[in-house]
Amino acid sequence: MWQLFQFPLCPFSRKVRLLLGEKGVGCELIRENPWEQRDEFLDMNPAGQVPVMTDKQRSIRLMDSMAICEYLEETVEKNAMLNGTAVNRAEIRRLVAWFDSQFFADIVAPLLHERMEKRLVTKEPPDARKLRDAMKAAVRHLDYTDYLLDHHNWMAGSTMSLADLAAAAQISVADYLGGIDWKNHEQTAKWYRGFKSRPSFRPLLSERMEGIVPPRHYDDVDF
Amino acid sequence: MWQLFQFPLCPFSRKVRLLLGEKGVGCELIRENPWEQRDEFLDMNPAGQVPVMTDKQRSIRLMDSMAICEYLEETVEKNAMLNGTAVNRAEIRRLVAWFDSQFFADIVAPLLHERMEKRLVTKEPPDARKLRDAMKAAVRHLDYTDYLLDHHNWMAGSTMSLADLAAAAQISVADYLGGIDWKNHEQTAKWYRGFKSRPSFRPLLSERMEGIVPPRHYDDVDF
Repeated sequence: MWQLFQFPLCPFSRKVRLLLGEKGVGCELIRENPWEQRDEFLDMNPAGQVPVMTDKQRSIRLMDSMAICEYLEETVEKNAMLNGTAVNRAEIRRLVAWFDSQFFADIVAPLLHERMEKRLVTKEPPDARKLRDAMKAAVRHLDYTDYLLDHHNWMAGSTMSLADLAAAAQISVADYLGGIDWKNHEQTAKWYRGFKSRPSFRPLLSERMEGIVPPRHYDDVDF
Repeated sequence: MWQLFQFPLCPFSRKVRLLLGEKGVGCELIRENPWEQRDEFLDMNPAGQVPVMTDKQRSIRLMDSMAICEYLEETVEKNAMLNGTAVNRAEIRRLVAWFDSQFFADIVAPLLHERMEKRLVTKEPPDARKLRDAMKAAVRHLDYTDYLLDHHNWMAGSTMSLADLAAAAQISVADYLGGIDWKNHEQTAKWYRGFKSRPSFRPLLSERMEGIVPPRHYDDVDF
């Protein structure tokens, strides 16, 4: 049985959980707060990051969310999420990297720091300027996803791919933390509404992070 | 014919160039300074980052260094660098992500900012404290690579892999910028000496970035 070390608002763990859900692979969730830097966890992953996916019986330990996703793609045939020619696959991987790096750095990382870490760890109030900057960046990023979805039904082409899972993972955390203004982003909103009704996504949307309440539209499929 | 947009001290471009070299794939180098944010380049890659690899005749444009490496692995059989079982491949990808994210963020990014960008763009002097922190981080990181190389001849196992190319790319830029103290890191130094004599690595080591002189040992195979 797989075990996944994660916490509810980790966008990288969400990407892996969405892929596990789409592929129908069972997995026990283990709560890990990486900001606590537990010695046992650092021994497991020197990078100190979730997700980590383990199978004790088979002595397998996988780290780095993209390495885990590539592993699942290579070992579980069902619902392949890196499809098409080598060029199509490169475009999917480019967009996964885009959401995991650019979208995360511009939007999700500052939101997590201001609205989650400060509340849970340092008890400081959030910096209003940094929140504003993150929300402005979200407008720019959704302009880009609108553009992508103008050209095809899914982020990287005509079929759902790992790029969509990475996008939904990052966007959903930003949305939980109040960072997304859905006005004027009808293309992305339509794509996201479809995504929200997927069985792989429902368990994530119903979870809550202690002490942090999402906006009312967060888990509403018809937001 | 492939064209690679890059600049000499970009560790991500170096990783791709090492892979191209090992696979014997020809490529024309095009100089691009991403900090100039040229409109034509941003149109090409909205992330504004090098490397970008293009083949105009076939209308192929690849972005994100790992997506480019996966593409080369999928399309060029010679000298495969993602070998072994799915678990081995996950370990290679974890280490590539380790060097591209942790090693880069702790060491190479601050060195590039203090010793290259400040010199070329803002003309400020480097911040001595940040340089010291980067060099201290390099000691910790080389302790980890020593540990990896204590267990096997290459970073991820008994054969050379993309993890070694990613490591050599990041370490070589840190070394160019004077960030590596080789004392007390005999395992990593031995591995790196072997790497320096590879035909794929020689062209990189002979290149210079204008206005920035590397330490004397930088391109010496017997440093």
